[in-house]
Amino acid sequence: MKINKELLQMAKRVRQASIILANISSREKNAALEKMADELETNAEKIKKENKKDLEEAKKSGLSSALIDRLTLNEKRIADMCEALRNIAALDDPIGKIERMWKRPNGLLMGKMVVPLGVIGIIYEARPNVTVDTAGLCLKAGNTVILRGGSEAIRSNSCLVDILTHALKNTAIPEDSIQLIRDTSRQIVNEMLTLDDYIDVIIPRGGESLIKAVSKNSTIPVIKHYKGVCHTFVDSEANLNMAERICFNAKVQRPGVCNAMETLLVDKTIAKSFLPGMLQRFQEAGVEIRGDERVREIVSGVKAATEEDWFTEYLDLILSVRVVEGLKEAISHINFYGSHHSDAIVTENYSKAKKFLQEVDSAAVYVNASTRFTDGGEFGMGAEIGISTQKLHARGPMGIEELTSRKFIILGEGQIRE
Amino acid sequence: MKINKELLQMAKRVRQASIILANISSREKNAALEKMADELETNAEKIKKENKKDLEEAKKSGLSSALIDRLTLNEKRIADMCEALRNIAALDDPIGKIERMWKRPNGLLMGKMVVPLGVIGIIYEARPNVTVDTAGLCLKAGNTVILRGGSEAIRSNSCLVDILTHALKNTAIPEDSIQLIRDTSRQIVNEMLTLDDYIDVIIPRGGESLIKAVSKNSTIPVIKHYKGVCHTFVDSEANLNMAERICFNAKVQRPGVCNAMETLLVDKTIAKSFLPGMLQRFQEAGVEIRGDERVREIVSGVKAATEEDWFTEYLDLILSVRVVEGLKEAISHINFYGSHHSDAIVTENYSKAKKFLQEVDSAAVYVNASTRFTDGGEFGMGAEIGISTQKLHARGPMGIEELTSRKFIILGEGQIRE
Repeated sequence: MKINKELLQMAKRVRQASIILANISSREKNAALEKMADELETNAEKIKKENKKDLEEAKKSGLSSALIDRLTLNEKRIADMCEALRNIAALDDPIGKIERMWKRPNGLLMGKMVVPLGVIGIIYEARPNVTVDTAGLCLKAGNTVILRGGSEAIRSNSCLVDILTHALKNTAIPEDSIQLIRDTSRQIVNEMLTLDDYIDVIIPRGGESLIKAVSKNSTIPVIKHYKGVCHTFVDSEANLNMAERICFNAKVQRPGVCNAMETLLVDKTIAKSFLPGMLQRFQEAGVEIRGDERVREIVSGVKAATEEDWFTEYLDLILSVRVVEGLKEAISHINFYGSHHSDAIVTENYSKAKKFLQEVDSAAVYVNASTRFTDGGEFGMGAEIGISTQKLHARGPMGIEELTSRKFIILGEGQIRE
Repeated sequence: MKINKELLQMAKRVRQASIILANISSREKNAALEKMADELETNAEKIKKENKKDLEEAKKSGLSSALIDRLTLNEKRIADMCEALRNIAALDDPIGKIERMWKRPNGLLMGKMVVPLGVIGIIYEARPNVTVDTAGLCLKAGNTVILRGGSEAIRSNSCLVDILTHALKNTAIPEDSIQLIRDTSRQIVNEMLTLDDYIDVIIPRGGESLIKAVSKNSTIPVIKHYKGVCHTFVDSEANLNMAERICFNAKVQRPGVCNAMETLLVDKTIAKSFLPGMLQRFQEAGVEIRGDERVREIVSGVKAATEEDWFTEYLDLILSVRVVEGLKEAISHINFYGSHHSDAIVTENYSKAKKFLQEVDSAAVYVNASTRFTDGGEFGMGAEIGISTQKLHARGPMGIEELTSRKFIILGEGQIRE
């Protein structure tokens, strides 16, 4: 593939910067992050002005109000971005730590040192705050970053990256450490995905078509951030009040996110006592219910769920509901139809809780809590770059630790191999 | 892409088996591994007979003696494979361990549980022992495996996999857990690389063209096992006797492997005292030297190294040698020309050793030892599936631990998100 010259130059610069950034101190990195926050604050008016242009364009082209909301940068959101950078500065720096050391019989002393990944490429939707958050997280973990945001946010992102880059002047972090691809064509993404000599990992955040296209075209290792078809299973031995509270929270508190519940599974022995009240509460909250045969026998007026429903991430006030024979069927359903993201059981039975934790093959498996907690902040990671839905390298919320690699260090005194 | 029906069926079976295997006990896995070793032993004659057919074919088609040696299975090598399986059975089982647990302010108790990766696809050269070693390691870590070995070893591999599969009868491990692709066409590999619904990770072991092709065509995450362009830097403050011993071992003890030294870097201040004796010793051992200008000024009759030489993995008795200004130039050379595999410094200077460990961006960085130690066994991992040359997921020798993933488990008592 022929690579755009400008892109290639950018990739070379960001790689070069990564070699410097890998070896600067935490103190220097933190000072630069603080500087970035300060300059965003100072330039808030400029940011809002550029963002307004994106918003006008978006309205003209008929973007949905949900997407326009995500695109919007107001005073509060700019302040949040600055706070995020300062929080990242305050986080522990993993780089250079020796995870463990051990001694071999021949006297070699060995250790595993935490090192940056190198250059991280991020492909994301039209949310300008992601530009700032991910740049901050990558830099703190000693990585440089090459950003490709949604075209609807191009003016906002350009403005943000210009400010961040300017802030790096007179800090120890090279200005080239944050690069934004300003060409909004699709072709440039395909070219970016072949730059395995310069980029160490690609993190795509977005819908199915983006994830599929990136996996297919990338010669760079990919960490997928894909969908969440999350389940709650209400066991026969659940505390039903707790179950209702958890299910309602998992579906309704914020339905548009990947850790919201999409399918409710209910044990047949408590279906009759649990479902009528639960589904009424959902319907009062505006949730459309799609049930299997047995659900529709218990509660009238419920729409029939199709096979497709069990695979679907609604991201909306829609819920599919199924009555199952018991724990075993619940686990099979989750492992087969789910997306291996976040799944919960509500039960007071110890053995069933243990079996569910063991056998559900998901990034986050819950007992007696809402799936909505799957989030770097809620897990205590300080900040997250996203939620990985693959098993390789990082699974579940990715914080700073997940943006690092390791190297072996070996301290000898003349050892040779016999 | 149209997928071969048989391959698709195989992939479905191996995925189904992985769900069962993920949840069987260490004791059951170990019993199955012992059974596999026993049956290989019992069938040694049969294995040698099938291997002989591969060898005859290989000789006819003019395979090099080195490759024929790798392909050969004799009494000793069959015994070694059995021993390897028993050693793997004796290793600690990582699956199901909780790495750490922590408590959140809202009372949620969280843990990180070690789980299998799932289904592992391995593409490798014509070394039948890899068939047995990798199958053993994958199973022990709770993964099922789909193998694609070199076509030259097809009869040996088929025989080995038949025996291993038969051994699994009447054990807790499903027979479908070990699958061999017996179609030796290239096309089938391309089809295999698109089965991301069934295979969780692809490990290619081989030369540049294989690695490139797999990276390009795979929609499954890949862990590359690529080349080793390894360096030793002899610092101005090295113990020169130790340096000579280490360099000689790193180059000559087994030149055909990825952790052998390919380039020797020497500080200019000791070049005159060190190089003549060192290079003479190499030449006496049959090593061809390719030097830069300064090397050729010091030692006569040395061939000139080209720019290409610095990038080359010879895997042979050839060594490129360069005189450098000092530590800084040595590190730059290694990070630029090397393959980020294994690199060593020989020095008595504390600060230079520390800087080298810090700044050399390789999977294994040594002070005062031979690079030949980069190996799962030598590092204390018990056994290895290979040596990863990428930064994602696993870097350097990969043992059982590296064949696992994690999941978060979250224990609540009714927590919901506010």
